[in-house]
Amino acid sequence: MRADARRNRDHVLAVAGDVVSEQGVDVSMRDIARRADVGLATLLRHFPTREALLEALLHTSFHELTARAAELEASEAAEGALVAWVRQCVAWTTEYRGVTVLMAAAIEDPESALHVSCTTLRAAGARLLTRAQAAGLARADLDGDDLFALIAMLAWAGDQPALAPRADHLFAVLADAILTGTDGTRSRSAGDGK
Amino acid sequence: MRADARRNRDHVLAVAGDVVSEQGVDVSMRDIARRADVGLATLLRHFPTREALLEALLHTSFHELTARAAELEASEAAEGALVAWVRQCVAWTTEYRGVTVLMAAAIEDPESALHVSCTTLRAAGARLLTRAQAAGLARADLDGDDLFALIAMLAWAGDQPALAPRADHLFAVLADAILTGTDGTRSRSAGDGK
Repeated sequence: MRADARRNRDHVLAVAGDVVSEQGVDVSMRDIARRADVGLATLLRHFPTREALLEALLHTSFHELTARAAELEASEAAEGALVAWVRQCVAWTTEYRGVTVLMAAAIEDPESALHVSCTTLRAAGARLLTRAQAAGLARADLDGDDLFALIAMLAWAGDQPALAPRADHLFAVLADAILTGTDGTRSRSAGDGK
Repeated sequence: MRADARRNRDHVLAVAGDVVSEQGVDVSMRDIARRADVGLATLLRHFPTREALLEALLHTSFHELTARAAELEASEAAEGALVAWVRQCVAWTTEYRGVTVLMAAAIEDPESALHVSCTTLRAAGARLLTRAQAAGLARADLDGDDLFALIAMLAWAGDQPALAPRADHLFAVLADAILTGTDGTRSRSAGDGK
């Protein structure tokens, strides 16, 4: 890529980051082109689809969250590792409105530019979940997709002004729901800011 | 109200019901007026705010859900009554996209035309919750607003194409989270379609 083409791409990506932070991932390519002051054709030359643009924008975050799961697996007990990772995912997804639904859709669509990042991230979460389940510390009938869905629900609630004040409490309730041992007992409280 | 004014009001309300079913409660008054083929001024004469229109549209449902809580309280054991009511609320709210967030906002706003209906409904749910808590069958640190928030989260998930296939399973997980006894044990599974 020539230096001016790369500068152009970097500029578009920086603007896209601002627009997505403000408006969420459902933003239109046309809006991003307008804000970046480039033609739609130019934007599509760099990023042929919105998924391709979001993958370029978010891949560092995906990679960090995936790496964080591996770190927690190595350093923390099964239960604490799982809850800490879910908490970090919720905090991150709250920054990008709609990203969890986009991720769930990308997991179902092998053609999506986000597919590999998202299935890798799901697998990282599923590994933490399986570890806690093997120790009898997490609800046995959950899988990586359920974990994603619960993270998505918490991220959504955190983004609703009427629900956000109780987001920490809802997190504690759902964390306890995940951490229900296979013998049907709740293993311990996950902490509650309420 | 004169007969033609009432006919006009009924017509607008019927059209509004269709539009809200299709597009959710965030629909604009302008869209409703256009679809009903009346001027915005005419619409606003009948319903000065969107909340006033939604109250007219939904008050039968609010009343039914409130009455249903009282029926369940009289006829069912504490645990089954609570879960059945939450399930019915989720099913209803899924029909009107965004309605739970609207309701949570209306509860905070005494000026909203929806305030009385929504606080009455919340009180009906809270009564079922308190009854289950008194029997040691529901998580002690939940209140009526938490119940509303959990219903809202389930309704939202049910409305997302990527999450909807697991909506029944998520309901079971959250129902178990509610039905965690005060001694820290899960009292029994709430049933699971997965």
